[in-house]
Amino acid sequence: MIEYHLNGDVSLNSPTKMPDAGSFLWNKHMMIQMNCRGYATAQFMQPEPAKYAHGPNIEATTFIQPEHPYYSHHPGRFFYIKDEQNQHVFSVPYAPVKKTPDEFHFIAGKSKIRWIIAQQQLLVELTLTLPCDDVAELWQINLTDMSGKARKLSLYSYFPVGYKSWMNQSAYYDDNLNAIICESITPYQKVEHYFANQRHKDSTVLISEFAATSFETRQAQFEGEGGLNFPDGVYQTQLQRGLAKYETPTAAMQFAIELSANSQYQQHFIFAPIESAEQAIQLKQQYMGATQFKRAKAQYQDYITSGQGCIRINSPDADINQFVNHWLPRQAFYHGDVNRLSTDPQTRNYLQDAMGMAYINPQTSQQAFITAISQQYHSGAMPDGILLHEKASLKYINQIPHSDHCVWLIICLQAYLNETNDYALLSLKLPFKDSTEQVSVFEHITLAIEWLLSQRDKRGLSFIAQGDWCDPMNMVGYKGKGVSTWLSLATAYALNIWRVIALQQQEHELAAQLALVANDINHCVNQHCWDGAWYHRGITDDGVGFGVSTDTEGRIFANPQSFALLAGAADAQQKCSIYHQVKQQLATPFGLMMLAPSYTKMREDIGRVTQKYPGTAENGSVYNHAAIFYAFALLEQGDGDGAWEVISKMLPTMDEDDLLTRGQLPVFIPNYYRGAYYQQPDVAGKSSQLFNTGTVAWYYRCIIEKVLGLQGCPQGLLVKPNLPSHWQTLNATREFRGATFEVSYQQLKGQATADSHSTAAKNVTLWLNGEQLPKRIIDNIQPGAHYQLTVIIA
Amino acid sequence: MIEYHLNGDVSLNSPTKMPDAGSFLWNKHMMIQMNCRGYATAQFMQPEPAKYAHGPNIEATTFIQPEHPYYSHHPGRFFYIKDEQNQHVFSVPYAPVKKTPDEFHFIAGKSKIRWIIAQQQLLVELTLTLPCDDVAELWQINLTDMSGKARKLSLYSYFPVGYKSWMNQSAYYDDNLNAIICESITPYQKVEHYFANQRHKDSTVLISEFAATSFETRQAQFEGEGGLNFPDGVYQTQLQRGLAKYETPTAAMQFAIELSANSQYQQHFIFAPIESAEQAIQLKQQYMGATQFKRAKAQYQDYITSGQGCIRINSPDADINQFVNHWLPRQAFYHGDVNRLSTDPQTRNYLQDAMGMAYINPQTSQQAFITAISQQYHSGAMPDGILLHEKASLKYINQIPHSDHCVWLIICLQAYLNETNDYALLSLKLPFKDSTEQVSVFEHITLAIEWLLSQRDKRGLSFIAQGDWCDPMNMVGYKGKGVSTWLSLATAYALNIWRVIALQQQEHELAAQLALVANDINHCVNQHCWDGAWYHRGITDDGVGFGVSTDTEGRIFANPQSFALLAGAADAQQKCSIYHQVKQQLATPFGLMMLAPSYTKMREDIGRVTQKYPGTAENGSVYNHAAIFYAFALLEQGDGDGAWEVISKMLPTMDEDDLLTRGQLPVFIPNYYRGAYYQQPDVAGKSSQLFNTGTVAWYYRCIIEKVLGLQGCPQGLLVKPNLPSHWQTLNATREFRGATFEVSYQQLKGQATADSHSTAAKNVTLWLNGEQLPKRIIDNIQPGAHYQLTVIIA
Repeated sequence: MIEYHLNGDVSLNSPTKMPDAGSFLWNKHMMIQMNCRGYATAQFMQPEPAKYAHGPNIEATTFIQPEHPYYSHHPGRFFYIKDEQNQHVFSVPYAPVKKTPDEFHFIAGKSKIRWIIAQQQLLVELTLTLPCDDVAELWQINLTDMSGKARKLSLYSYFPVGYKSWMNQSAYYDDNLNAIICESITPYQKVEHYFANQRHKDSTVLISEFAATSFETRQAQFEGEGGLNFPDGVYQTQLQRGLAKYETPTAAMQFAIELSANSQYQQHFIFAPIESAEQAIQLKQQYMGATQFKRAKAQYQDYITSGQGCIRINSPDADINQFVNHWLPRQAFYHGDVNRLSTDPQTRNYLQDAMGMAYINPQTSQQAFITAISQQYHSGAMPDGILLHEKASLKYINQIPHSDHCVWLIICLQAYLNETNDYALLSLKLPFKDSTEQVSVFEHITLAIEWLLSQRDKRGLSFIAQGDWCDPMNMVGYKGKGVSTWLSLATAYALNIWRVIALQQQEHELAAQLALVANDINHCVNQHCWDGAWYHRGITDDGVGFGVSTDTEGRIFANPQSFALLAGAADAQQKCSIYHQVKQQLATPFGLMMLAPSYTKMREDIGRVTQKYPGTAENGSVYNHAAIFYAFALLEQGDGDGAWEVISKMLPTMDEDDLLTRGQLPVFIPNYYRGAYYQQPDVAGKSSQLFNTGTVAWYYRCIIEKVLGLQGCPQGLLVKPNLPSHWQTLNATREFRGATFEVSYQQLKGQATADSHSTAAKNVTLWLNGEQLPKRIIDNIQPGAHYQLTVIIA
Repeated sequence: MIEYHLNGDVSLNSPTKMPDAGSFLWNKHMMIQMNCRGYATAQFMQPEPAKYAHGPNIEATTFIQPEHPYYSHHPGRFFYIKDEQNQHVFSVPYAPVKKTPDEFHFIAGKSKIRWIIAQQQLLVELTLTLPCDDVAELWQINLTDMSGKARKLSLYSYFPVGYKSWMNQSAYYDDNLNAIICESITPYQKVEHYFANQRHKDSTVLISEFAATSFETRQAQFEGEGGLNFPDGVYQTQLQRGLAKYETPTAAMQFAIELSANSQYQQHFIFAPIESAEQAIQLKQQYMGATQFKRAKAQYQDYITSGQGCIRINSPDADINQFVNHWLPRQAFYHGDVNRLSTDPQTRNYLQDAMGMAYINPQTSQQAFITAISQQYHSGAMPDGILLHEKASLKYINQIPHSDHCVWLIICLQAYLNETNDYALLSLKLPFKDSTEQVSVFEHITLAIEWLLSQRDKRGLSFIAQGDWCDPMNMVGYKGKGVSTWLSLATAYALNIWRVIALQQQEHELAAQLALVANDINHCVNQHCWDGAWYHRGITDDGVGFGVSTDTEGRIFANPQSFALLAGAADAQQKCSIYHQVKQQLATPFGLMMLAPSYTKMREDIGRVTQKYPGTAENGSVYNHAAIFYAFALLEQGDGDGAWEVISKMLPTMDEDDLLTRGQLPVFIPNYYRGAYYQQPDVAGKSSQLFNTGTVAWYYRCIIEKVLGLQGCPQGLLVKPNLPSHWQTLNATREFRGATFEVSYQQLKGQATADSHSTAAKNVTLWLNGEQLPKRIIDNIQPGAHYQLTVIIA
């Protein structure tokens, strides 16, 4: 059973089947994803992403993987508890012993993660939080007797540290610090790497509040023949005080506890990567103890609260209120504030994360646009990744040229300008990646447009090259001939956006040109890319259209349809056909698939996506980042109900069956749910558990600008709501350009045009502070002012 | 308890403490190291090293690691056996359930690995062998009832396949094939990688002889909440016939067995990487069934026998006989025949492996020298690795320039010429890596010498640059100033070797020059590198000598001492001092440490080795590859006892305590045992378990050329034995240039000069076919002839 708490926490109570749900915390320097069973995935920056707890083998460094499997020796944070009177042992949170507890509550809070567990007449309360400014986990454990009798217990921390290095790894117990310090040296071979690694936090420390009765730093000896279910170490009277000498280290400490009847024991732990023992001393001084934990928790809560965003809603849907008010801005804040813990975010992601930040912290958003634009090439091309650190380099997918980054610059900048009115940014002069010449942001964008237009074939369609977006089928156009329907349409959409901004900037000639070219592109797409009932996805190097009705796999793709709506390419008849086909072929109970049917085998002429597993990642999953654009496009068409149908499926519901199917709590939107719904219904809906996704910025934008219709414009606030028709009333608080709007919506019954994909403007009347407004724009907004806005939709 | 069998097998019987010992098998395409508990490390070539069973997470691709840790989810080959009448479950060989068996025999054979296990009144016999020409494991399991009653059993294969790919992984059961096929696609991002991976064996198959009653292909569902100790799958009546769909796959099959009293059940399995199901069908046709297994085993035994080498001994030491006759040539054959399953063997290793092959298969040895020399640069420099495949590239340590490869070319070629008399090779014309110009092998070597001599400082000492050998302290000379004592001496040694060969080739002028230069180098080393009681290791970029008496760590290194003896740099007094200091500072019960004391922290002016864990790899371990050179140098000095002291410690003894300390059976020489004996006696002696080491070629050479003293020379067979003084009699069979020598040694008591490091020639008299020989050389050897040689040492 899941429930929401008033403070935004989501809690999971002991279900009959133990779920794999979890939650995550982060600060500026680190991220930790905790599974409710105790498994953990954590990274920190130095400046490249690094780990401080590992599996007991050599792990590959990759980007964070979706559907990451957990296994017995997966890194985690565990405590064993032994009743010394009867030798009964269990572990909390759940693994490794995995005895079914009497009660099990997993509480995902915005600034902390908690468990409350009852087992063997003990109530165990575990809490994890992070400090704001250090890479460290702060753990608190409370044990309360519920038997009414005095207890003799042993508490064992078991924080496995894993295989740290093939060069050097060891561990010891520091008596003064009450800490196990696991030392290592990041392996290197080349001289230059030695110097690069010199300041690495290569050691991992577990500091306890109280002195340990005994300890074991050797993973193998802690486990013994009993293994993690029945570790020899725990079943012996005392841990063996062993020192790991080039052996897999672990941080196991034993604490003898005498607990009088109904009383409580509390202890705190700090788990952190450190460069030296001195840093452990500092961490201990700063964070160890109940008072210090309380202070750190409060500070961290302040940090999370600083990212609470510009909207609060009270709709008839409690789940959506909870998510939009608490978790959505939190996830967008994570993306925009720490850039997914990467030093080379993909340009497309970085720009969209910056867009999301416009609704939370516009200064950070502005700085991100400046950073990105300063890394544009003089040719107008945007790089594949934005380097955030002087020593950063492009890694993984950023080594593959993608052709679409320029369109995102324009699309995302629009949202920033809407929200902030910061048109002054367009005059700011910035350099290039490959030139110190400084030109205005406006001119940078003009160059980006020119570059986009230069990358087209004779027909006027955009080359797809090694890949564009979301479904980078890297062999479609690697020979330099294949084209992308989506990118052609996205270019037309971006041109239309910039046309409006150019007009605003009195660049009438440019605006007229942009209108002409966008129109040309749309025309060209209609000529070459309309397959009869929907737009295809592109044309291969060999001239074969794909994503067409004669394809048995990959027959229809969502993105070209969404962007045809956004770019204005589709006429009324085409729109009608698109709505129907998307619903028929792509809609599922878990959301909109990005393509269908999933590819089950390689199509040599199309490429990579067809090698991914059906229903995952880009191969026909419910790729939320693609789905949100279809919702956005429907909202632009005025179809609030159609959009809501897509948006509302992006989160698991409060239904326990849904939780078990998807495997996650409704505290974040994952990059995908398994799709291939008609091909593999048994695994469809499963969450990727990966919370890095451009979806959240767009979800937030959809809610603010399109659903609530509270969109910024040069004159002020444009009010153009598209509420789902089943919401008759709604209240919202909107922070906007320094003012606060308390907005009250009323949607009159029977007037909604559900399922009609209506493009007709709704009859909306506005009352500001009790006075009816003559138009839909609120201008002359005073910073600091409070406005009462009533919106009547008929 | 360990025992040897007549056929060369080594068997380990159930000790009270379960050991971690294991053995390995290989064929031309693959290698598998089996731990007696069931854990496995296996690789195959396609052409880069690849795995077909993984941990359940993403593993890093690295070179094979020493002291590799095993853990619950480590890849392995296991069977669970459930008694359906009482639901008792155990697993064989031992893990994952780890119930102590009634009997446990682990038998490491040269061409197969076997277990005989008694548990729950069942006798289980497990056998693994390999085919010669395919990448596949052939498993046989026999179950025999020992209860005298009819049994109802379930047998479960549990061959975990692990996390195969983040792109695509799945598994299914093939009814026709009786097989679980786990499919995947090697992840790639760049177009070119797709094409490179196209023919990869990305799938893994487990084929059973009989149809399974049920199966489970999902790792998580097989384990359930019970985990590997009590897998839900095994405790249920039937496995769930689940299909892994982008989940970690496993190959678990259940077989219902009705066993009448005292009867036997036998089944066969094939486990292999495959490109397609068709390959599985072929494997099944070729290898499935008792007859086919028998044939494959016989063929594989023939292959192993083809590498039996050129010597058989019958000394008073049964352990040494066993090793020299069976296991040593096997290990040398592995190195020389499959090049450590690498596509870019380090040049130094490749040449030494080729040297070892001269005693086993001289044609292969010759081809390796040709391959290596053809990759020399026109400058004379040898590359850091030899590329064995057109698409191979230099990886890992081969990307770091090492300065010593040229000396190995000369040193190793000498052994090949000794053994084969193939001086014609010196006239063979070969090209360069960077030039198609062809020059003779002799001229290639001359260029190598010129290059070595050009890489010296003004004093005449060889630059160490980023590293030389065995202790590549990569920051000693990276600025281009630091020098290596060892490399200077190794150069002098190589020059002296080539001087003799030049004389043989009538190149008198060159020979005279080489003698002069070698003498100069020795003089120079004595002037700058003698520290008073031993040679130091080198001089840093900043002019600081290291490996000196004032150093508290890294005070003395073995290699400079060994090579000073070999190069003839040390005078009588220096030799005496070296013998004393090496014994005092480097000798341990587990062999000779390569340096002492081990570094415990970084010395910024020296570099990498000091970052490795004390007592491991190059940081003060008993690095057998270094130790064997000290033995070789002592043998050259005529000190058979001193050498034997070093050589005899390279293997664990039959003593069970020694086995448990070292953790390995005496079936191979590991690259190192933990050293730092005086610093960390508690972990000293532990085996690295890594059987890739240049040691074996030298060990074999020491035994043949120096201990037995049966060394080839241009005229024939030079007989110059250095038996340890406790061997009074010894028989040996020596295959040499097509003839067979039955050699009988008698060492007269009281004449040996034990511990005297005698350099005086021993009084040796020879009888050939009953006639006393006037000199120590047997000339005019007739291929095909059998000779009776009696050697009397007085």
